[in-house]
Amino acid sequence: MSTAQKAVEYAHKNRERFISELSEFIKIESISTDDEYKAKVEQAAQWAAAHLRKIGIENIKLMPTGGHPVVYGDWLKQPGAPTVLIYGHYDVQPIDPIELWETPPFDATIKGDYLFGRGTSDMKGQVMATLNAVESVMKTGDFPVNLKFLLEGEEEIGSKNMGTFLPKHRDLFKADFCLNPDAGMISADEPTITFGLRGLAYFEVYVYGPSHDLHSGLFGGTVHNPAQALTELIAGMHDANGTVTLPGFYDSVRAVSEKEREETAKLPSTPESYLQQTGVPALWGEKEYTPALRAAARPTLEINGLLAGWTGPGSKTVIPAKAMAKISCRLVPDQDPAEAHKQLVQYMQEHAPKTITWEVKPLHESPWAITDINTNGVRAMASAMETVWGKPPLYHREGGSIGVVAMLQNICEVESGLVGGGLPDDNVHSPNERMHLPTWYKNMDAFIHFFFNMK
Amino acid sequence: MSTAQKAVEYAHKNRERFISELSEFIKIESISTDDEYKAKVEQAAQWAAAHLRKIGIENIKLMPTGGHPVVYGDWLKQPGAPTVLIYGHYDVQPIDPIELWETPPFDATIKGDYLFGRGTSDMKGQVMATLNAVESVMKTGDFPVNLKFLLEGEEEIGSKNMGTFLPKHRDLFKADFCLNPDAGMISADEPTITFGLRGLAYFEVYVYGPSHDLHSGLFGGTVHNPAQALTELIAGMHDANGTVTLPGFYDSVRAVSEKEREETAKLPSTPESYLQQTGVPALWGEKEYTPALRAAARPTLEINGLLAGWTGPGSKTVIPAKAMAKISCRLVPDQDPAEAHKQLVQYMQEHAPKTITWEVKPLHESPWAITDINTNGVRAMASAMETVWGKPPLYHREGGSIGVVAMLQNICEVESGLVGGGLPDDNVHSPNERMHLPTWYKNMDAFIHFFFNMK
Repeated sequence: MSTAQKAVEYAHKNRERFISELSEFIKIESISTDDEYKAKVEQAAQWAAAHLRKIGIENIKLMPTGGHPVVYGDWLKQPGAPTVLIYGHYDVQPIDPIELWETPPFDATIKGDYLFGRGTSDMKGQVMATLNAVESVMKTGDFPVNLKFLLEGEEEIGSKNMGTFLPKHRDLFKADFCLNPDAGMISADEPTITFGLRGLAYFEVYVYGPSHDLHSGLFGGTVHNPAQALTELIAGMHDANGTVTLPGFYDSVRAVSEKEREETAKLPSTPESYLQQTGVPALWGEKEYTPALRAAARPTLEINGLLAGWTGPGSKTVIPAKAMAKISCRLVPDQDPAEAHKQLVQYMQEHAPKTITWEVKPLHESPWAITDINTNGVRAMASAMETVWGKPPLYHREGGSIGVVAMLQNICEVESGLVGGGLPDDNVHSPNERMHLPTWYKNMDAFIHFFFNMK
Repeated sequence: MSTAQKAVEYAHKNRERFISELSEFIKIESISTDDEYKAKVEQAAQWAAAHLRKIGIENIKLMPTGGHPVVYGDWLKQPGAPTVLIYGHYDVQPIDPIELWETPPFDATIKGDYLFGRGTSDMKGQVMATLNAVESVMKTGDFPVNLKFLLEGEEEIGSKNMGTFLPKHRDLFKADFCLNPDAGMISADEPTITFGLRGLAYFEVYVYGPSHDLHSGLFGGTVHNPAQALTELIAGMHDANGTVTLPGFYDSVRAVSEKEREETAKLPSTPESYLQQTGVPALWGEKEYTPALRAAARPTLEINGLLAGWTGPGSKTVIPAKAMAKISCRLVPDQDPAEAHKQLVQYMQEHAPKTITWEVKPLHESPWAITDINTNGVRAMASAMETVWGKPPLYHREGGSIGVVAMLQNICEVESGLVGGGLPDDNVHSPNERMHLPTWYKNMDAFIHFFFNMK
């Protein structure tokens, strides 16, 4: 039996324990978007550090970042062998709207082939798949490569301190390849490597009208209702084709090549699969691109939140003094988050009427990333996937943003291989987040093979 | 000294006690729009009933309505003299946004000439002005007219049970005139009688998209974001002139007469006064009408609330599954709330795209009202005002809605005189609601004279 095969057997025998350890990790409510959960986020960092120690990793430390700590650890006992940096994040999204959860969000619950709970898919489950693979190799023989770990607590808030943290520790995180399991697969039967990510620029837009809430009976018809003015401004941000109208928004968008059009057309992400996964009555967006291309290679502007006036039960006849929208742009090569900010401000300058005042507050930004699929790391991963699934992986760009990928590229010169067992219907960032257990197990096996392929 | 003069002196001597009694009434958090405050609303009814008893009113009872009770009482010991029905409501608006209050909303606080607190102006203060006037006449001589009281607890939720309650008690509330102090004055120096009110039709509009919240990275660009679709629908509900675009919305709107244009032009409600009271950078609305006419004689469509997606601190990259707006129309003669509902539904049918589904839920409605200014009651009130302020009152239409006025007219055949000490800058329905004490005192005096003028 090969050393890889021994490690795979170890992983198979320990699946039940792996689930119970993951459930412990999920129990820690590490919501990084909400300051009230600060202590819980710290607790998740401590838990991850303790687990690294347990599986044989050394030099473990919690490194301060100005926000939530980075968990570092390494195992560097194979001089001459390559070094793999393993990235993960231990923070999770909020759980609202809580009433839509069918199981307690922080009590991981198995139903059929799925484990339900916040963070099962994004990404405590993926972190643990990687750590379980490391443990399985560590406990059954000599580790074939060197390892470093970078587990952050601020991915869900745009890795906002990573841009100042990484330059200070440039050498510590130097590696030959970064294994980043924060991406996903197109379907459970299609091993997938993600070679591109969209960037993000996230804003709060405020419209201010009267100096205080007004009675709509006394003043209705005399002032521009800020909630109405906000809807008018937002409505103008797309044209009838779904194209974003911010001035210059598409100026630096890299055209989709004919080759990428062809490759994307081969993916199983069809209009039908998008309809089925989303449950919308009809799809929407730029007609000259397929939904898969729109989600991967085209920029967007989304309304993530709206708030104005009275939103509780019953009726209150108020003209609100202000209205707020959370608006974010997904950005593609070669767009710049700072430019998107300027374009939004320029749009507001050009379109906001004199009857109101307004403000655009940038909340966070994250650059897009493209990985070279011919690196050793990507090839080692592709080969490992073929061993486990019996077919080569698909390569695609993903619509999400993982800020650290571009930062590792630009600051530490480390290319990332974006993989992971997340599936499109895992309800990430939504109620009833879940993880497909058979895929989780397969990914553990693939990570084990990857380590041996890297040596 | 005339009997009226004795009563006025009594009122002047008891001002401090009157304020402390009003403060007790305000302390009861009778927010009728929120079911959590049900017991407090009931408590306010009990308090009002006890106070009526204290000032000499008889046959007091709390009458069930299907919602909050009506407080009834009467004093019918002047056979042959007219009967005055006194209307009031003991419920108040919610206090959100609570953080903008500079004094505790339910602890009435005097600052300068003002008493601050929820309900000071709308309308516990006005109810108490009337009851204080009744007490002053009652304690200083023989009451010149007969009295009935109708104090309701659901005005702020559109008097929604009054339409079934009043027909059952048609005779009980028969009277020669209804004194309704739930209106206001144009300014502290301008005694005002309101002869018209706008109606109201209040809705919740829902837009539904995906079956669950989606990750904007994975799905952004492929589905019509419900928050965006809602803003697009709302933005189309007005044209560039501020005219409402619901189909047929103006079909039954009574034209503003040249006489009313002239009369309204004489009112001190100028564009400058609207700017000053609202604090907006510029006024808004149909250019062919003055702001005063727009607020009184023209219908409107207002966005009273917006809610979608993530509205907490920080950023969450969600495409929300649904979005909600609270939308209400102020209606003028001869519009019908049921027609407004149909028009809104028709607008949605004509404009909602196939990429979303939607729902319009009617929350409540209230008809407009017009009072004949030549009735004895209005004349008695006008004369009383002239005695106190030294000049005749102005007559105007008000933009708010008081459902009971039309119902008393249609069901019990009682005309209402709409008066009251509310001023345009009292912040009714807003934080820091307040009441101008000198005006409150003057109104008590005017109500005393009114009772003697009625006999």
